[in-house]
Amino acid sequence: MTTAALIEELKTLVEPGKVLTDADSLATYGKDWTKHFAPAPCAIVFPKSTEQVQAIVRWANQHRVALVPSGGRTGLSAAAVAANGEVVVSFDYMNQILEFNEFDRTAVCQPGVITQQLQDFAEDKGLYYPVDFASAGSSQIGGNIGTNAGGIKVIRYGMTRNWVAGLKVVTGTGELLELNKDLIKNATGYDLRQLFIGAEGTLGFVVEATMRLDRAPRNLTAMVLGTPDFDSIMPVLHAFQGKLDLTAFEFFSDRCLDKILDRGDVPAPFETRTPFYALLEFEATTEEVAEAALATFEHCVEQGWVLDGVMSQSEQQLQNLWKLREYISETISHFTPYKNDISVTVSKVPAFLADIDSLVNSNYPDFEVLWYGHIGDGNLHLNILKPDALSKDEFFAKCATVNKWVFEVVQKYNGSISAEHGVGMTKRDYLGYSRSAAEIGYMKAIKAVFDPAGIMNPGKIFPL
Amino acid sequence: MTTAALIEELKTLVEPGKVLTDADSLATYGKDWTKHFAPAPCAIVFPKSTEQVQAIVRWANQHRVALVPSGGRTGLSAAAVAANGEVVVSFDYMNQILEFNEFDRTAVCQPGVITQQLQDFAEDKGLYYPVDFASAGSSQIGGNIGTNAGGIKVIRYGMTRNWVAGLKVVTGTGELLELNKDLIKNATGYDLRQLFIGAEGTLGFVVEATMRLDRAPRNLTAMVLGTPDFDSIMPVLHAFQGKLDLTAFEFFSDRCLDKILDRGDVPAPFETRTPFYALLEFEATTEEVAEAALATFEHCVEQGWVLDGVMSQSEQQLQNLWKLREYISETISHFTPYKNDISVTVSKVPAFLADIDSLVNSNYPDFEVLWYGHIGDGNLHLNILKPDALSKDEFFAKCATVNKWVFEVVQKYNGSISAEHGVGMTKRDYLGYSRSAAEIGYMKAIKAVFDPAGIMNPGKIFPL
Repeated sequence: MTTAALIEELKTLVEPGKVLTDADSLATYGKDWTKHFAPAPCAIVFPKSTEQVQAIVRWANQHRVALVPSGGRTGLSAAAVAANGEVVVSFDYMNQILEFNEFDRTAVCQPGVITQQLQDFAEDKGLYYPVDFASAGSSQIGGNIGTNAGGIKVIRYGMTRNWVAGLKVVTGTGELLELNKDLIKNATGYDLRQLFIGAEGTLGFVVEATMRLDRAPRNLTAMVLGTPDFDSIMPVLHAFQGKLDLTAFEFFSDRCLDKILDRGDVPAPFETRTPFYALLEFEATTEEVAEAALATFEHCVEQGWVLDGVMSQSEQQLQNLWKLREYISETISHFTPYKNDISVTVSKVPAFLADIDSLVNSNYPDFEVLWYGHIGDGNLHLNILKPDALSKDEFFAKCATVNKWVFEVVQKYNGSISAEHGVGMTKRDYLGYSRSAAEIGYMKAIKAVFDPAGIMNPGKIFPL
Repeated sequence: MTTAALIEELKTLVEPGKVLTDADSLATYGKDWTKHFAPAPCAIVFPKSTEQVQAIVRWANQHRVALVPSGGRTGLSAAAVAANGEVVVSFDYMNQILEFNEFDRTAVCQPGVITQQLQDFAEDKGLYYPVDFASAGSSQIGGNIGTNAGGIKVIRYGMTRNWVAGLKVVTGTGELLELNKDLIKNATGYDLRQLFIGAEGTLGFVVEATMRLDRAPRNLTAMVLGTPDFDSIMPVLHAFQGKLDLTAFEFFSDRCLDKILDRGDVPAPFETRTPFYALLEFEATTEEVAEAALATFEHCVEQGWVLDGVMSQSEQQLQNLWKLREYISETISHFTPYKNDISVTVSKVPAFLADIDSLVNSNYPDFEVLWYGHIGDGNLHLNILKPDALSKDEFFAKCATVNKWVFEVVQKYNGSISAEHGVGMTKRDYLGYSRSAAEIGYMKAIKAVFDPAGIMNPGKIFPL
């Protein structure tokens, strides 16, 4: 069957106009936020129901057509890039919150629901959806589940995994599974729901997800603390964790602050400049909590771990302090940064960061290295900025060499080569630095169980 | 090879004296707390290291010998019963806490560590292991992971799954997998750790687990509230959840209280007798929190949801209130109870309980039905006491009929036939009431991936 004939058949499975093949659509829906692969899908299909998704998967099985699921396309690992003539299955038209239950504190979402849409919905109900990150305004719940999205509140609320009460998925054979039925306790064999979370669409597609909501946080308050070196950040974390229930503990280097202040629209946290900054957040539910925070701050100053600091006194100040951290990624994007998203256990972070820092600095003294990330989770974002003197190609070629060294250090520290961005295509060749050959073998066997024809997002996680 | 010759070979794989075949040992190590199956293992083996576990599994593969893992033997689904000539692998000699990290708040445990041993260890370190249940003094961490143990603090802390940072497992082929490396964020493909949690030893054996610890709770305070009917318990839960971060929300019927008071060693919570009681717990960190609790109590009384209540004012009173709930299982055990451990989503609990109550009462008016459980998680323990007039055999035969009806109601409400006790052998024939044929098919295929020879706890979860 010719591709044209296949696409004609595909059109019969969905509503009129819900298969696109124009060049603009192919370019738009064929990619995510990564820039390494040229999009080359053969068509984009927009199902509006679970039955249509099942029909598409059965059709793809019959004709051995590869499918790529597409959400908000904000991914950073090319897991939603269609670079090999695949059909992209976009969930843009399955974007409704179908049900809400105030006693269960759950919302039943279609996969195309935008993260912020769920956050706003929860707020309207006096509740809270706590998974949050820079791309929450575009990313979709289905994609969040596929990558087990993390972000800035993980230290308190955990990953997306913690908030998935139940899943409906269509497997690689077109079968519909209703997993866990939204139960809190359910000890009836293997929890298949967990397999689909973080599987990047390689086992099946999420067609419905029941998401848990939490009570709304009360009087969120942030502190930004300047530290004399990176090593001081860990005892600061430890001291505050012993006294407060933190909702976030982030960090960034002074070089990051430079870039933010250059914007001109974000005020400096305080006058003193220090090599690193910690941003922590907690619920100042009572006067006592705020006092404990200040006492801990003073203790950290006495110990020499903190040189200066500020605590938000209003919602506006809270938001301004968060901008110092949340605007970094967007602000540095025009410097063509080479990004790595790596993690180790929290206690290993200082030695790990020092190792990588010295490795990059000694080999590439002209590279500007920017560090920031979710230090309370052991998750570091390593960003190397392109020197003006280097062409993009030269720069990325050198970075590929750096990559290998970085991952060797990650392996030495028993860490992860992808903390929260997933594997997709950008990390698949490096998977062996974080997973053993035996593990990869078992993963491939599991993929074959759910996707025997190998049509579900092939070439992602594992090489083709 | 004869069984005797096989056992001689097995003895060469472990330390001298670490294979037992005497009748007492076979009877003791061949069973758990269920009484439905006669233990009949051929030997008990006690490995002392991961290497010995691997050697045992490889030997079992070679000779096609079935293995049954054995922990504290407190299970209630016969998942650790060896009734078919299997070799029992006991983890009693792999019972050390190997490492502690105060910055990561983790403890590396061998599988034979007793739950309470970890709780006490955490307390010594100023921290807290929050998974708790009646058998915590005997149950082992390996068994807790195998059944994804829940218990009384799930409403705040979640199941055992939430506290497993990393796992080392030996698969059915004897391969050692190191899963997740204790990382908080790790997006490198399928999270195989999750598959082994709750797998009841059918995919492999846990040989090491890194468990997370939490900060210690502060000034735990309990309330017991008497309600005029079951339906009033749900608005009480809702009201308190809106105002406090609950650490527990349990319930029991007045018939349960009867049995507890008959013991003579537990004081009544208050004079009024009411059909049902809720027990809730929270951290009274400040005066304001305690005041919010009392204001909510008064609101519930005004609404007619609560008839009487008490709040603990001391550690001793806290413990006495908990005895009202925690002693039930042990207290009713000599009435030969027929137990069921079922769950639905929280919002469905009242209708579900009423349906089952009327079903049992209308068919067996002479049966005494006792309800208690973890209402905040939707988890109900249904206990039917044997009437004196019936023999044990007659009683259990009638209960088997009840079972089917109960599970039909569970299915109607989209619930679980085993909330936290697992499937083992007692629920395997009923699995279809909670999992679809397609799901069971996928589960069996996954089992074949990790245990191709079918030697790992065969006959558990799925029929032989």
